Amino acid sequence: MKASRRGFLLGGVAVAGAGVGGLAGHAATPAKATAAPADRVAFHGARQAGIATPPQQRLAFAAYDLVTTDRAALQQLLKTWTDAAAAMCAGQMVPGDSTTPAAPPADTGEAVGLSPANLTITIGFGPSLFDGRFGLAGKRPAALADLPHFPKDQLDPANSNGDLCIQACADDPVVAFHAIRNLARLGRGTVTMRWSQLGFGKAASTSAAEETPRNLFGFKDGTRNIETADEGLMNQHVWVGSESDQAWMRGGSYLVSRRIRMKIEAWDRDYLSDQEAVFGRHKVSGAPLTGAGEHDSPDFAARAADGQPAIPMDAHMRLAAHENNNGVRILRRGYSYTDGMFSDSGELNAGLFFIAYQKDPRAQFVPLQRKLAGNDALNEYIEHVGSGLFACPPGVPTSGDFWGSALFA
Amino acid sequence: MKASRRGFLLGGVAVAGAGVGGLAGHAATPAKATAAPADRVAFHGARQAGIATPPQQRLAFAAYDLVTTDRAALQQLLKTWTDAAAAMCAGQMVPGDSTTPAAPPADTGEAVGLSPANLTITIGFGPSLFDGRFGLAGKRPAALADLPHFPKDQLDPANSNGDLCIQACADDPVVAFHAIRNLARLGRGTVTMRWSQLGFGKAASTSAAEETPRNLFGFKDGTRNIETADEGLMNQHVWVGSESDQAWMRGGSYLVSRRIRMKIEAWDRDYLSDQEAVFGRHKVSGAPLTGAGEHDSPDFAARAADGQPAIPMDAHMRLAAHENNNGVRILRRGYSYTDGMFSDSGELNAGLFFIAYQKDPRAQFVPLQRKLAGNDALNEYIEHVGSGLFACPPGVPTSGDFWGSALFA
Repeated sequence: MKASRRGFLLGGVAVAGAGVGGLAGHAATPAKATAAPADRVAFHGARQAGIATPPQQRLAFAAYDLVTTDRAALQQLLKTWTDAAAAMCAGQMVPGDSTTPAAPPADTGEAVGLSPANLTITIGFGPSLFDGRFGLAGKRPAALADLPHFPKDQLDPANSNGDLCIQACADDPVVAFHAIRNLARLGRGTVTMRWSQLGFGKAASTSAAEETPRNLFGFKDGTRNIETADEGLMNQHVWVGSESDQAWMRGGSYLVSRRIRMKIEAWDRDYLSDQEAVFGRHKVSGAPLTGAGEHDSPDFAARAADGQPAIPMDAHMRLAAHENNNGVRILRRGYSYTDGMFSDSGELNAGLFFIAYQKDPRAQFVPLQRKLAGNDALNEYIEHVGSGLFACPPGVPTSGDFWGSALFA
Repeated sequence: MKASRRGFLLGGVAVAGAGVGGLAGHAATPAKATAAPADRVAFHGARQAGIATPPQQRLAFAAYDLVTTDRAALQQLLKTWTDAAAAMCAGQMVPGDSTTPAAPPADTGEAVGLSPANLTITIGFGPSLFDGRFGLAGKRPAALADLPHFPKDQLDPANSNGDLCIQACADDPVVAFHAIRNLARLGRGTVTMRWSQLGFGKAASTSAAEETPRNLFGFKDGTRNIETADEGLMNQHVWVGSESDQAWMRGGSYLVSRRIRMKIEAWDRDYLSDQEAVFGRHKVSGAPLTGAGEHDSPDFAARAADGQPAIPMDAHMRLAAHENNNGVRILRRGYSYTDGMFSDSGELNAGLFFIAYQKDPRAQFVPLQRKLAGNDALNEYIEHVGSGLFACPPGVPTSGDFWGSALFA
């Protein structure tokens, strides 16, 4: 049964009038199946959507822990989740029966009537999934090495790690939330949610064609991000290839998440010139301090009138630039968040939920973050309070397959 | 200086190239001032926007406490906030200097480049503002009587009440968040934020013309809400009139906020028929259990085949209906929220941030909630965990005036 959320709504009214049934038949007509909404991203394919596909406006992210050690139950969960994710990304209800009175509806219903809103649902497997509970110890990729402790880390274990993660992105936050909630529901008895994070504003672009969004410090974020349309760059930096020791990960990518609290109040008291020195960029235009336009190449050798480097040695942009890191790059896909405030200080509990994709965290995020954690001028205003590392398998090419099936081959 | 956020962006690029100034001049040309964006709601007027104006998609709500007892400082704060709110609602930067290097920028910048997104900013005064600190004890309206304790209340004082509140609604959550953050910043030294709440999904309609949104239980919310276009109903139920003992409140309204946690997991296990009995409505269509269409009038006398009331006696809709409450109605304007999850139980920390406007809470919200708290079948699945009561003064008719100026006359 494939009941489109919009079709279901119309069908539902008819049902209410008639008293019974006929709903599934209405909604699953070929005519509906071929008329895909304009704001629908394909779920099936060689790659998982949500990595190279354009970032949507809103995020709902969740990490889950298995509460079983039954390998078959894990497989069944991944099958059930895959089918549900494919349906939700198509703007359909969670598969199953949502109309029998004497049963809980299969779909929780808050997204009925809403379009797909470009929903993408991306899964990742945490290091702990390979700890032996499921006979997968031999499948752990070397690149999925636990992240080291970085200087100044203030990680909350309750908001870090997890056996599985789901990144749900959509242009409508109700649609994104609906996804992580319904997957949690479908997994009851097999998984529990470990932590979750809503991101209310996209804070990274992946294309020079789109306007670069701003983070909560008021600066453009993602100006020098990898352009996902560049297949060469994606293969070089993001997609796992034949170099992997684990064949099942080829075509996938590694996700690092960091919950980065921003000390909003301290930042807002800082001089504009200091803020710009911290990033190495002009605030409004986003141009490097040595340039006039956002996409001008930074001149790291340039000196200011006082003889000092025009882009300070501890500027975030200098330290993170691929020119200064042997060409290392990562694909960022972060979102601004706020979870209210700290009642003791009255300060906003807000920041950046950083997400980065890469071919090998050991060679990309880890050295970059080691350098930033030790030297970045931005550290005065931020604090890493949560962390996650996940292996995102390749895509599900057809509806008969499921996420991570190669793990069990 | 009126720098439009979009104009500022263009101006900023020019400045970066030229090295200095000229920005304010560019952005404040009459041509810009007259070309109002399509998604802009007027700030100035006899009524505050954000009550009768159409509800936007997203909410940022904050309560603030005064940290001074200086009456003049309170007046100055209200003036500063009014001017800043008027600017932000017009899609302009927070007034002041955002371009001098050796000073903190007046505007925090994360909304630069974004449109007004139909932003409305609505202020309310809590009962504690009238406790004598500011010589306002004689100005407290009788209708601003502290809410009583209701059965089953589980209110967290840290997430309740406050001297002042700001309701910022916009179709872009970044724009809404920017408003409460910048007002907090402008108020530093005079106020601190007491609590805040982001609402990610509109969960009430105020017009039969728009599609009724769904709450996190998957039911349509606001089907029988007051239509704000109906001036007669608004004057009868929402706007304070000549009956008020306080002239300064005439043309205003009283806001009651309730943070209502929804027990998502328990609800999701409930049978469809039970869910529908709890609300008294069909889930998908939103029709009353005695009707076929969402807007059909409920038949509270109708009996089912088994002789029981077709709409159960403890159904939420029956208990809340104006037919069963001597015609009492309130204007709802709630939003779905989620603040992650409870790490002990693994359950979602999510629900409805309920907002209601009315002429007199003593005669409207209080008797309604007393009845619901004692009898509503929904109580098995919800919990009131935060509460606020605020007197929202009339609008600011001209740019020379400020919020609540009549309080100080």
